[in-house]
Amino acid sequence: MAKKLWGGRFKKRTHPGFERFSSSLGVDCALAPFDLQASKAHAAALGRAGVISRASAGRIVRALDGIRKDLPKLAGSFGRRDIEDIHSLVEAELVRRVGEDAKRLHAGRSRNDQVNVATRLYCKTHLLAVENEISRLQAVIVRSAKAHQGIVVAGMTHLQKAMPILWSHWLLCYVEALERSKTVLADTRKRLDILTLGSGALAGTGLAIDREAVRRELGFASVSPNSLDAVGSRDFVSETVYALAHLGVNFSRIAEDFMILQIEEMGWLNLPEELCTGSSMMPQKKNADFLELARGASSILIGNCTALFTLQKGLPSSYNRDLQWDKEPLFRSFGLVEEMLPIFAVLFKGTKVRADRAHRSIANDQLAATDLAEALVTAGVPFRDAHERVGKLVQAAEAAGGSLREVPSAQAALILGSQVKNWKTVLDPALSVNRKRTTGSTRPSEVARQIARWEKILNAFF
Amino acid sequence: MAKKLWGGRFKKRTHPGFERFSSSLGVDCALAPFDLQASKAHAAALGRAGVISRASAGRIVRALDGIRKDLPKLAGSFGRRDIEDIHSLVEAELVRRVGEDAKRLHAGRSRNDQVNVATRLYCKTHLLAVENEISRLQAVIVRSAKAHQGIVVAGMTHLQKAMPILWSHWLLCYVEALERSKTVLADTRKRLDILTLGSGALAGTGLAIDREAVRRELGFASVSPNSLDAVGSRDFVSETVYALAHLGVNFSRIAEDFMILQIEEMGWLNLPEELCTGSSMMPQKKNADFLELARGASSILIGNCTALFTLQKGLPSSYNRDLQWDKEPLFRSFGLVEEMLPIFAVLFKGTKVRADRAHRSIANDQLAATDLAEALVTAGVPFRDAHERVGKLVQAAEAAGGSLREVPSAQAALILGSQVKNWKTVLDPALSVNRKRTTGSTRPSEVARQIARWEKILNAFF
Amino acid sequence: MAKKLWGGRFKKRTHPGFERFSSSLGVDCALAPFDLQASKAHAAALGRAGVISRASAGRIVRALDGIRKDLPKLAGSFGRRDIEDIHSLVEAELVRRVGEDAKRLHAGRSRNDQVNVATRLYCKTHLLAVENEISRLQAVIVRSAKAHQGIVVAGMTHLQKAMPILWSHWLLCYVEALERSKTVLADTRKRLDILTLGSGALAGTGLAIDREAVRRELGFASVSPNSLDAVGSRDFVSETVYALAHLGVNFSRIAEDFMILQIEEMGWLNLPEELCTGSSMMPQKKNADFLELARGASSILIGNCTALFTLQKGLPSSYNRDLQWDKEPLFRSFGLVEEMLPIFAVLFKGTKVRADRAHRSIANDQLAATDLAEALVTAGVPFRDAHERVGKLVQAAEAAGGSLREVPSAQAALILGSQVKNWKTVLDPALSVNRKRTTGSTRPSEVARQIARWEKILNAFF
Amino acid sequence: MAKKLWGGRFKKRTHPGFERFSSSLGVDCALAPFDLQASKAHAAALGRAGVISRASAGRIVRALDGIRKDLPKLAGSFGRRDIEDIHSLVEAELVRRVGEDAKRLHAGRSRNDQVNVATRLYCKTHLLAVENEISRLQAVIVRSAKAHQGIVVAGMTHLQKAMPILWSHWLLCYVEALERSKTVLADTRKRLDILTLGSGALAGTGLAIDREAVRRELGFASVSPNSLDAVGSRDFVSETVYALAHLGVNFSRIAEDFMILQIEEMGWLNLPEELCTGSSMMPQKKNADFLELARGASSILIGNCTALFTLQKGLPSSYNRDLQWDKEPLFRSFGLVEEMLPIFAVLFKGTKVRADRAHRSIANDQLAATDLAEALVTAGVPFRDAHERVGKLVQAAEAAGGSLREVPSAQAALILGSQVKNWKTVLDPALSVNRKRTTGSTRPSEVARQIARWEKILNAFF
Repeated sequence: MAKKLWGGRFKKRTHPGFERFSSSLGVDCALAPFDLQASKAHAAALGRAGVISRASAGRIVRALDGIRKDLPKLAGSFGRRDIEDIHSLVEAELVRRVGEDAKRLHAGRSRNDQVNVATRLYCKTHLLAVENEISRLQAVIVRSAKAHQGIVVAGMTHLQKAMPILWSHWLLCYVEALERSKTVLADTRKRLDILTLGSGALAGTGLAIDREAVRRELGFASVSPNSLDAVGSRDFVSETVYALAHLGVNFSRIAEDFMILQIEEMGWLNLPEELCTGSSMMPQKKNADFLELARGASSILIGNCTALFTLQKGLPSSYNRDLQWDKEPLFRSFGLVEEMLPIFAVLFKGTKVRADRAHRSIANDQLAATDLAEALVTAGVPFRDAHERVGKLVQAAEAAGGSLREVPSAQAALILGSQVKNWKTVLDPALSVNRKRTTGSTRPSEVARQIARWEKILNAFF
Repeated sequence: MAKKLWGGRFKKRTHPGFERFSSSLGVDCALAPFDLQASKAHAAALGRAGVISRASAGRIVRALDGIRKDLPKLAGSFGRRDIEDIHSLVEAELVRRVGEDAKRLHAGRSRNDQVNVATRLYCKTHLLAVENEISRLQAVIVRSAKAHQGIVVAGMTHLQKAMPILWSHWLLCYVEALERSKTVLADTRKRLDILTLGSGALAGTGLAIDREAVRRELGFASVSPNSLDAVGSRDFVSETVYALAHLGVNFSRIAEDFMILQIEEMGWLNLPEELCTGSSMMPQKKNADFLELARGASSILIGNCTALFTLQKGLPSSYNRDLQWDKEPLFRSFGLVEEMLPIFAVLFKGTKVRADRAHRSIANDQLAATDLAEALVTAGVPFRDAHERVGKLVQAAEAAGGSLREVPSAQAALILGSQVKNWKTVLDPALSVNRKRTTGSTRPSEVARQIARWEKILNAFF
Repeated sequence: MAKKLWGGRFKKRTHPGFERFSSSLGVDCALAPFDLQASKAHAAALGRAGVISRASAGRIVRALDGIRKDLPKLAGSFGRRDIEDIHSLVEAELVRRVGEDAKRLHAGRSRNDQVNVATRLYCKTHLLAVENEISRLQAVIVRSAKAHQGIVVAGMTHLQKAMPILWSHWLLCYVEALERSKTVLADTRKRLDILTLGSGALAGTGLAIDREAVRRELGFASVSPNSLDAVGSRDFVSETVYALAHLGVNFSRIAEDFMILQIEEMGWLNLPEELCTGSSMMPQKKNADFLELARGASSILIGNCTALFTLQKGLPSSYNRDLQWDKEPLFRSFGLVEEMLPIFAVLFKGTKVRADRAHRSIANDQLAATDLAEALVTAGVPFRDAHERVGKLVQAAEAAGGSLREVPSAQAALILGSQVKNWKTVLDPALSVNRKRTTGSTRPSEVARQIARWEKILNAFF
Repeated sequence: MAKKLWGGRFKKRTHPGFERFSSSLGVDCALAPFDLQASKAHAAALGRAGVISRASAGRIVRALDGIRKDLPKLAGSFGRRDIEDIHSLVEAELVRRVGEDAKRLHAGRSRNDQVNVATRLYCKTHLLAVENEISRLQAVIVRSAKAHQGIVVAGMTHLQKAMPILWSHWLLCYVEALERSKTVLADTRKRLDILTLGSGALAGTGLAIDREAVRRELGFASVSPNSLDAVGSRDFVSETVYALAHLGVNFSRIAEDFMILQIEEMGWLNLPEELCTGSSMMPQKKNADFLELARGASSILIGNCTALFTLQKGLPSSYNRDLQWDKEPLFRSFGLVEEMLPIFAVLFKGTKVRADRAHRSIANDQLAATDLAEALVTAGVPFRDAHERVGKLVQAAEAAGGSLREVPSAQAALILGSQVKNWKTVLDPALSVNRKRTTGSTRPSEVARQIARWEKILNAFF
């Protein structure tokens, strides 16, 4: 049994089942580099405060650097469940390396102090990495949008063909959604960029630690102004897990689109074989497993969000051990997102657009029904009436095989009225996109403008 | 049966059970003022674009203003489930008032366009209101903290007495947590401050609507740059519902603290009778029902967050009717939070602190055990050793009745070592708070500094 | 302000904002009939126990019957938020009708007693109704399966064509899933079939109430054996809400299938127009809104499940007012499910199968690739090798246009080996279903057997 | 790179990042023993069907037995993420051991078939184990209830003292709650006790496998009647995860009770030191960490429930790869519950009741207020009036120091009326429990009866 950091007043040893249950080492080893970083800053602060000698501080800092380098070797211990956590492991190693001095390091801080600052450093680093990876993914998509500007496909609402749009317009829709997730992640990162170390167990400490100096050394934006709040709040973790779920939901929607667009009858997308798998029973299958796994992974991310919220609901203020459970979902959520991001880039790079299928998707001239209604409006018909008339024309077309164009002219004239003469010219779906005039629309020139805007924004990531 | 906005191509009437199931009028009537506001801007835009005459635009705008005034009268219809939604109701009313012109208003926009812009206006208004109400609540708490600076209580971790802290310090912990929720709400508000109107069904419109002008008129910060993304994304709703749950979780923690602090044996808090209720069976009961209801309400807020995420998970891009379900949780979450906020202010205003109970809570000198350890550290003992020695002293005290002071001097000297002579002077818990030295600690001068800081920040809300 | 049931010891009146916030009348009015039923049984029990006279008991019972009849008239009060709950409303009405005697009714029971028993009666009634409605829906689907036995379609896995199956087989898959939900609902109903009335506030009562007699009168299966557990546990509500979400998830999967099968290029399903709606902007649209709303509704049901669990997490034993929040999700979940069930029956009745499209879906002979592999196995080839060979044949077919049949015979022979001579005869997808031999398979005779089995089980619901 | 089970038709190798992301080996190795068991039954079935020779079948079965024995040695491979899953690993090992024959085993089954049957076997085994462990825990609690029958404590509602109850009554409340969870688990186990193996990829198989014989060999209760439903449904997993969360919520409530009852001022409970830990900073702390961790663990269990539901929401029928994500939450939930159960037994065994504290908790005679009201009722006063009068007496007592007994007799007589003469004799809280008369109440003889009932039910687990 490893030595406990708090054993003084205890007479009995910890129950072994409970020891295993409560150990977080297998999970929080991910904090190791950040714990070491924060411990260095704390050692320096103790030195400056005169709590330990400058020499001691120096020895501790150098030893922590050494442990940082030797982390891979320590990884063998990460499965041990008789060690409480990564902080105990590091301290034990520190004692092994520098002896007596190591015992001076924990002055003026609590373990929760350590966990908190390390988790914030972890989040800052990983959030920024995810944000950058999103930018890289966006750049891949923008490049693809640029390359496919000529392709017009059937835009859908309610999973039904609605109007022709540029495939590039569709792709840019993902860039927007990802940007939104990125902003949620970045806002979260900024909000959690606070040094909590120095809060002690809940009340601060009587040792003269200069928290402002520690803040500077660790690169935090500000110092937490209330020790009780600092030790007891983990909403920064639920915010982070939430932000990752936000991204996960956007991933799941992209995946669903691609799933549908690759259906044999439907799809103009041909997915890269290296992201597909086969069936162990059916020799012909090429399944889009990555899409399905990405779609499903959002459930884990959402479940983690529920877990984090529920964890904190109804807890009293200040630190409660329940909060230890924040790390498992946090690290899992990051892990999933960090694994998926580069594969999504492979997906967008490797997916081929089948131009013939895309073209076939807009064959039905009912896709231009709204254009026809707007032509009537431009000719002075109130929109509701225009909509009603074109609706009747659709009804007639359905009875006659489906195409608006094939409704007998006389019948069509009766239905549509006389305001728009050459109404059949409006019905070429391929021309529909050019008729759009609004900012943000699928008009090719507007789409090109948006591509250019993104190229500028994502400049560093191409 | 009310007339549908899309009936042209349909031959059969809608199934009545489905009509009831799909109607959102009972819920989305909350959008009415915002729908009217956006419709006015759209009418003006159509006028400017020459799609309708300036005169028509003027008539429509005036009629919408009239409807706005008469909304209370229309409320009688909000229960009708044969009307699809608030937008249909408003349009029907508009037709009743201005006839033909009303039919011109829907040109160049889809119903989803309407819902989206109205929901964003709703969120902006209600988010800002919630933020301000939080500030008012914070001001109440800060005032209470200022009034109670002399009171020292037992700070707890793990629901166990840990160290003496100022009750004001404890109160400020809530101010911090609420500030965090407020910032999450404000960040959310800024992110959703985007005009989506003008996106049409999914592709934009062929009518020459100047979206920038509409943006200015409605006071949005920017214009959405991709119509497909605009119509299909509702992450701004899940973000809002999330932010409200964030606040709800903080409410639940405050409620839990107060629940515990009002237990007969424990508590130094006496809750205002007007927030308590009795028992229908037990005549003596005075139950803190508001606290329990507030704690429980967080579950509804969290459940809504799950609902919103799950709703969007795996949906294809673009608009899907599933998204109609976003409003019920959104409005419910706002409703709960808006009801609770002012009652929390009553709670903090009306709660009395029982000074005797507070004082009794720190009677046990074990609360100064950390002070004693830090005194040893200051005298040169490594912290781990200091912790171990004081731990042993606690063990001895436990055997001897509980008080550190009553451990026989000889035994104590043996345990503690010789570095700290007058160790008993460290043991007055009331003095403990004065020993703290760090920023954010419970030191009275630091707490006073934080109170002053908050008074400045919340200046407008006192 | 309405009179409170517990005002004796209180000096101040309740805060009006809190009064509104805490009132549950608008929600729990759904309990009225069940509350009246339980109150009648309680009055009779008090009479039998000699706590009130038989005459008083009789008067109370008759008055409660009268209130039951007049409930529609009372509905006007259900919006009042100065009345605490339905129980207060009923008691006030009872006082109005029988005066003094009414004040005797609450002896030996707590309000929580009332809520608990009424909620259980509500759940029993509504669960059974839902179970029966599911049986009716299953009967509709079975009838449709019987009618469509001749239709073979492309069965899919991973949303990709996998093997030919009977459309009837596909339909029966829904019958199975619904049966599972029904069993979960029924098991839940059986578990909650316990009389809790008579538990008092938490400890039972000193009045000699014969709970066994009350149980018989109200038709419960057993009597709760621990009063503390009875008043404080609401897991029967989370179980019910869970069971409804279970059904909701199955609904969402059916809806998703139908969404995909009605896509223009894909689908062999033509949905009933009366469950579709159009677009306010695009005149040609016929959107499958019911499917989308049903799919989305599962999110509300899932969110309610999260809410109920989170509500109870970490609550102390015994009654806590938080539990009041159980009813809003409970009633909402039942409401959604009860609305959807009959519409699903309309969906299955009204959906037309387009035989030509169904037939076209199995045109590709790759759908028989597994049959070919199994033919090789029957001829002695180890399955892995057979799978590998047919996989290579698929690769060759893909290069040559897609059809296995069109791979040049020489090349095919080289790939497949010599064990199976007339391999092309295996490739008719329409015959594939007849080759299946296992219980539960899509073999037409097996499907017919399953239809017959269901006809017997659901006999009462056709 | 390990060989894939489906590589035939693929030209490109799998993307390594995707390979890692999609590998489930690290998780589903828990299925190994169950996969081996099912594979044995399948091999035998293939032998009986004549698909493979009896000799081959025998060799395969023996090799699978060998692998079962050598599983610990294989565990070293479980971290490899270039192997898709446990089924691939087992098959590779089988090939290594028996060569050619191994390639015959996968005939007539799909991998999903394998996963499904193995997961069901896993669930059956682990559910039963959990149920039994619950029974053992209940037995420990019943024993403790039996040992503490003399102790009367303050029962609470709303976390406020309500009425005196037996501590044994309180303990039995947990036995009831656990019984409910156990029944949910058992019902779940019975519902999932279905053989799905033999469903093939989705349509069954053309090989003549006798599923009924396989069912008998594997000990399932029935055979799944629809192959499409069998491969695509995982509600049995969400049901299991739900049932575990049900138990988790009950754990969290027990933990919360104990947390409160061990507060210094409050509690009559002294927790076993071996389930507590100290503070790294505060030498005096003895924190009830296990309770907090158990309370918090319920959040993970609830989050897993959300994840499982969300995972399946909106999926098309039949197998989709998303479903792979069901295992991580499933195994995690079982892991948590299986770790906690025996520690809870240690908790109940090791917790000491401090009789003096318990006694002090009922010192306040207001706890007998309901007894007094019921005494008035017995004397003919309507309950509402009795409640009101005692309420007024409480008000008077509060003004006079808190004790009902100390309200001046004249004032008390005025308030209470003349019906009950010797009202002060009712006020001994210790006698209150004896006055209770209902089934399930806290009356000592009734509690003893319940203890005896449980001793009989749990007979096998003492």
